[in-house]
Amino acid sequence: MVFEFRLIKKDLHTRARLGKITTRHGQVSTPVFMPVGTQATVKAMTPEELKEIGVEIILSNTYHLYLRPGHELIRDMGGLHRFMHWDRPILTDSGGYQVFSHCELRQIKDEGVYFQSHLDGSKHFLSPEKAVEIQEFLGADIIMCFDECTPYPATRDYTAASMELTHRWAKRCKDFHETEKRRSGETEIKKNEGSGFSPIPPFSHSPVQALFGIVQGGMFNDLRKESAQAITEIGFDGYAIGGLSVGEDKMLMYEMIDAAAPFLPAAKPRYLMGVGTPEDLVEAVARGIDMFDCVMPTRNARNGTLFTKRGKLGIKSARYANDPNPVEDGCGCYTCRNYSRAYLRHLFAANEILAARLGTTHNLYYYTRLMADIRDAIETDRFQEFMEGFYKIAEEG
Amino acid sequence: MVFEFRLIKKDLHTRARLGKITTRHGQVSTPVFMPVGTQATVKAMTPEELKEIGVEIILSNTYHLYLRPGHELIRDMGGLHRFMHWDRPILTDSGGYQVFSHCELRQIKDEGVYFQSHLDGSKHFLSPEKAVEIQEFLGADIIMCFDECTPYPATRDYTAASMELTHRWAKRCKDFHETEKRRSGETEIKKNEGSGFSPIPPFSHSPVQALFGIVQGGMFNDLRKESAQAITEIGFDGYAIGGLSVGEDKMLMYEMIDAAAPFLPAAKPRYLMGVGTPEDLVEAVARGIDMFDCVMPTRNARNGTLFTKRGKLGIKSARYANDPNPVEDGCGCYTCRNYSRAYLRHLFAANEILAARLGTTHNLYYYTRLMADIRDAIETDRFQEFMEGFYKIAEEG
Repeated sequence: MVFEFRLIKKDLHTRARLGKITTRHGQVSTPVFMPVGTQATVKAMTPEELKEIGVEIILSNTYHLYLRPGHELIRDMGGLHRFMHWDRPILTDSGGYQVFSHCELRQIKDEGVYFQSHLDGSKHFLSPEKAVEIQEFLGADIIMCFDECTPYPATRDYTAASMELTHRWAKRCKDFHETEKRRSGETEIKKNEGSGFSPIPPFSHSPVQALFGIVQGGMFNDLRKESAQAITEIGFDGYAIGGLSVGEDKMLMYEMIDAAAPFLPAAKPRYLMGVGTPEDLVEAVARGIDMFDCVMPTRNARNGTLFTKRGKLGIKSARYANDPNPVEDGCGCYTCRNYSRAYLRHLFAANEILAARLGTTHNLYYYTRLMADIRDAIETDRFQEFMEGFYKIAEEG
Repeated sequence: MVFEFRLIKKDLHTRARLGKITTRHGQVSTPVFMPVGTQATVKAMTPEELKEIGVEIILSNTYHLYLRPGHELIRDMGGLHRFMHWDRPILTDSGGYQVFSHCELRQIKDEGVYFQSHLDGSKHFLSPEKAVEIQEFLGADIIMCFDECTPYPATRDYTAASMELTHRWAKRCKDFHETEKRRSGETEIKKNEGSGFSPIPPFSHSPVQALFGIVQGGMFNDLRKESAQAITEIGFDGYAIGGLSVGEDKMLMYEMIDAAAPFLPAAKPRYLMGVGTPEDLVEAVARGIDMFDCVMPTRNARNGTLFTKRGKLGIKSARYANDPNPVEDGCGCYTCRNYSRAYLRHLFAANEILAARLGTTHNLYYYTRLMADIRDAIETDRFQEFMEGFYKIAEEG
């Protein structure tokens, strides 16, 4: 097994943890934030730039890649890492979230979900088995179970039924993945039959992929606990908490993390899906979460909203028109080292591609540095102090 | 005087020349292609990436910068080099071409041109003096005379009158620039009065800027000759041929270059404005041209048209959907070293920013390498041979 999680340290005053994930594409220090590369690219960035910022792992979206360019094409091109020229770890989601949020015409059945592509209306079917197979074709280091992301708000009855469906699907995902692992193990290296592309080496997938389970349970404390226990019972390489940051109040989200996290095994990584703001990351780390992903730093950057220790900065504002200072004083990112707010504001006003690049570079640097600061604080027993300082600077604005 | 042109070598069989331009921001080997950075950014690229490709000089557009963010703002931010973080030479055009091509409501008078902004309809006036002053504020290394780009087609009468207006304007540009140079020379360093931005050093403009004259004369052999002689008579640091590549046949364009270039002083650089295709560059170099600019490599890249030695490649085509090869075999650019045609095609299909980046990188590398190959061929007395090979490979396709 190439996947491993080592718990290095537990904070004395909070439930914050320091850890290290090992994959065949290298190591990841946790707590970690994973930038989102929806369509096999973290928007506006090259892999080299992500590395320079210190990004150790990215997330990519199964739903989007399945529809375009197709998981078989990516397998034929040597897998997602080679296709997009990223040689560090990748996590792929299961496609479930996108099917439920992007697709109007869908039918949820026990066998899976029938839906129409948001691109061209073509009809498709995703099941637990299919979602795992697609992710195996993509060749990510960590793959996710197919789940139903319970909508918000939802009744208790709907939430419970939805949670149970997610549990049944989780079991099927694991069974399918285990079978695939055994099958691949027998043939050692699974070849690209009929691909015929000489420059690409034979490609092997499932034996080295870690499979994470997903906890659901909506906004009900007891269901969150029940789901955490049921998913743990099935047994996975890591555990995600899904169905949060879907419109609920922040306090409610933190409560749901508190309801689920303590019932997940301490020896495995915990991943809070689709979260969140810098504050969310700090709060969730304190609640025992190790991994995060969110489009916020990249999407906000393209809209001109930049993160700083003192809060968000809307760079398009006329107040920055002739401001010679960097986005954030003392920031070590490429953008802040070389460009003024005035120049960035001009690029956004002129709708230049470089605006998205420089904004994304800054925001991902901010998120990556925040996680590095968090890890450093846990390591040196200063995490609680770090949290206080984090809020103090933000309030001073 | 910080500006200098040194003619290193003349080809034995054609009129091709090898030269070196020296500016306060470094040297430029000619023949050279200048990528276009319309709005103080070469679209999709950072300055570091341009340098990695080997770009030695870029062009920026006075008209666009004057309207947004404004030449006074750029002066207050320390000049265009500092504003856009590019420390190599910059050439700015005069804004004339854009006024004539972008602005519907304009009045051409002897004193200058009244026009409305294409952005917001606001009313503006550009004169020879104003155009030079704006360029001095921007602080480019090479600035251009304000001219009328004669439309195509045009009658002989219109063309002659337009040419004479350009000549009168050229004289006024030179007079104004000389006066400014004397004035600046007296105060040694012209300070940014009232800017108050501490991190920006005092900024000096005109004393070190080279002013180029522009030859017009439409599609008339004798007018081109007359214009070249008249502009040479006034006397400039370099000479441009304007008003070509405006819709005329290629053969006619080459004929016009032949009509003008021999009457320009051999000791000064010659710049063919807004040209062109790789073939145009090769043909114009053979006719004695040293400098070029064109949006073609950057604009085509964003549309998915990529240049190769064997011709243009429309990367969006379905034929490249699962093509594992680079855009061009043997190409040393970042794109070709790391990405397949299949991946590029996917990025273009998904409308990703990285598509524009990787395409632009390849096309600018192609143009820059082409010019380096041309210089090498002139230096080693193989330019004619190079031309033959260039066409042979292109024909084989």
